[in-house]
Amino acid sequence: MDAYFDHNATTAVDDAVLDAMLPYFQTKFGNPSSRHVRGIEARRAVNQAREQVADSVGVQPAQVVFTSGGSEANNLFIQGAAGYLKPAQIIVSAVEHPCVMRAAQEVARGANGKWNLRRLAVDNLGRVDVADFDNATVKQQPGLVSVMLANNETGVIQDVAAISEKARAYGAWVHTDAVQAFGKIPVDFALLNVHAMTLSAHKIYGPKGAAALIIDKRLLLKPLIYGGGHENGLRSGTENVPAIVGFGVACGLVKSRIAESATRIAAMRARLEQGLAEMGAVIFGLGAPRVPNTCYFALPGIEGDTLVVRLDKAGFAVASGAACSSVNPGQSHVLEAMGVESMLARCAVRVSLGSGNTLAQVENFLKALRGVVGELKRMSMVTL
Amino acid sequence: MDAYFDHNATTAVDDAVLDAMLPYFQTKFGNPSSRHVRGIEARRAVNQAREQVADSVGVQPAQVVFTSGGSEANNLFIQGAAGYLKPAQIIVSAVEHPCVMRAAQEVARGANGKWNLRRLAVDNLGRVDVADFDNATVKQQPGLVSVMLANNETGVIQDVAAISEKARAYGAWVHTDAVQAFGKIPVDFALLNVHAMTLSAHKIYGPKGAAALIIDKRLLLKPLIYGGGHENGLRSGTENVPAIVGFGVACGLVKSRIAESATRIAAMRARLEQGLAEMGAVIFGLGAPRVPNTCYFALPGIEGDTLVVRLDKAGFAVASGAACSSVNPGQSHVLEAMGVESMLARCAVRVSLGSGNTLAQVENFLKALRGVVGELKRMSMVTL
Repeated sequence: MDAYFDHNATTAVDDAVLDAMLPYFQTKFGNPSSRHVRGIEARRAVNQAREQVADSVGVQPAQVVFTSGGSEANNLFIQGAAGYLKPAQIIVSAVEHPCVMRAAQEVARGANGKWNLRRLAVDNLGRVDVADFDNATVKQQPGLVSVMLANNETGVIQDVAAISEKARAYGAWVHTDAVQAFGKIPVDFALLNVHAMTLSAHKIYGPKGAAALIIDKRLLLKPLIYGGGHENGLRSGTENVPAIVGFGVACGLVKSRIAESATRIAAMRARLEQGLAEMGAVIFGLGAPRVPNTCYFALPGIEGDTLVVRLDKAGFAVASGAACSSVNPGQSHVLEAMGVESMLARCAVRVSLGSGNTLAQVENFLKALRGVVGELKRMSMVTL
Repeated sequence: MDAYFDHNATTAVDDAVLDAMLPYFQTKFGNPSSRHVRGIEARRAVNQAREQVADSVGVQPAQVVFTSGGSEANNLFIQGAAGYLKPAQIIVSAVEHPCVMRAAQEVARGANGKWNLRRLAVDNLGRVDVADFDNATVKQQPGLVSVMLANNETGVIQDVAAISEKARAYGAWVHTDAVQAFGKIPVDFALLNVHAMTLSAHKIYGPKGAAALIIDKRLLLKPLIYGGGHENGLRSGTENVPAIVGFGVACGLVKSRIAESATRIAAMRARLEQGLAEMGAVIFGLGAPRVPNTCYFALPGIEGDTLVVRLDKAGFAVASGAACSSVNPGQSHVLEAMGVESMLARCAVRVSLGSGNTLAQVENFLKALRGVVGELKRMSMVTL
């Protein structure tokens, strides 16, 4: 492969992360709940990782609830808060990841049936319309609010603090899915002024299988998984020690990742988008604040799925939509919410850059893309 | 450390398992939902592991639902079936793992409040009283039944097929937590005649972070985690590819583990229990069918917790109760259900043998135990 351009889907584990994980598979393999030396060393490793995760977003270790992934963490907040609070309105942005959106739909469909779901509109650049929050709260009090910090498809950054301020005036609990922002831009729990926030390891060069829900210590949540009472009763099950250790180390590297993202990666994207503009591409979210690694574009008339396959053959890994929903193909709900017409949305391709990428790869990609596009245009002329 | 005797808590990852996992952290690190080559190779790896897991218990790959651990799998069945079925009676054995027991309690406490929880009695050897199932069903129809295959503390094997037969007569769905049996005795889904079964990787020399709920394909379950629709809609979230790959390889090794368990490990336990008997130990569940690696004993008058700490210092890792509930210390609910008096229950110690152990370690353990016991008896005489 020439270049992996799909870092918003997942990342390769960093060398330092893997090195830190390895002893926990065979040498220090204990169960952290065991009271002998093997258990104690595993418990210490989990505690150290908890400190590393906490430090990276400016919270106390006791605010970190480890889960198996971002989807679980998002579900734990949405379902867990809804299971505890008095039913009211649940407000999410129209561009949330399916694991927030569907969890919220489930809450609204739930047994008690007393939660009402409201989606906040976004503008044509994919920015959540903060004023729409006021429209949403005219009829009913909000109880729960979840707005992502950066969108997985467009990379557009939302003004979570502004939403939080409005929501807190009603006493609502506010959550942000920061999975796609973390490691790309600074993420500070206190500045965002939320009650809960989701982070994931495998988007920041950590392993799959570890993530965290960061919580305000006053929050009471109904667990998803009951059992031995791990994670302060919020998430039972033997801790995935190697993955948690790797997550901790990956969090320790986040500061330097953000610096790289703001400079080297931002420069690569600028070159990419210059080249794409010259080819007549539409770049979604251009002009809105975006995380520096993500470029979501369309070449009108050329299907995204076709491009992904052709580019893959040419050695470039890109996505036609969010990887997490590729198992359920269909039109992007993000582009739909942005008012992008269906014909253009079908042409969407996402390039998400990362640490392993180089400017030379971007140049090669532009060259390959021009070749593929030329070929497809010739084919379509012949076919017509 | 001289000997790790806590294999029911967790196991070290097998060399072959770790070797198989390693490429999936850095080289083949893709997200299985991605449609490029990195995604496709990850998807293939997950599919292969699904076949390996399925083969090891005689089911079709489509019957395997990967989860992050045994606790999640047990909760997925209990909560997921209760969320789908018409409320009725939920019957579990009195000696279930907390992740079954507390999930069942949660169902009974749930919003609809229409499920009634009934615990099946066990005899003084820890065997579920199959006749008590008939008592339980006099008043109310059973809708859900969960009885573990082997107990984590005593190692006692339950007659799950007999329970299944009775439960099926009422149209109830039957589940077995086979986490502690799998890899120690043959486990066949069809022979157990259940609708669902839980398996876990880290008890069979696989990694933490992977487990499976094996299901009858006709079962409809309400998911715990909503999102991208992974695992046929039953468990959303990016698959933990390296852990799943490791789980698959560990399942491939299960046949030889069972053979070792029936011979070498059974012989070690026989020697251990002979030595313990000579010291006046009570062995819980002795006389009942047990998995060959587990010995749960008490030396009357000597606290289990004290022994665990002393033996740890002497280089032997044993447990005073189930590791998973050591975070919530308290008396063993298993021994309580068996009618063991409180004073004796406090003396309980679990030795769970595994592949890395040798007969020499067992001999050394008996010698160390005699030393520790002698020392404690001298100390108590001085203190009195």
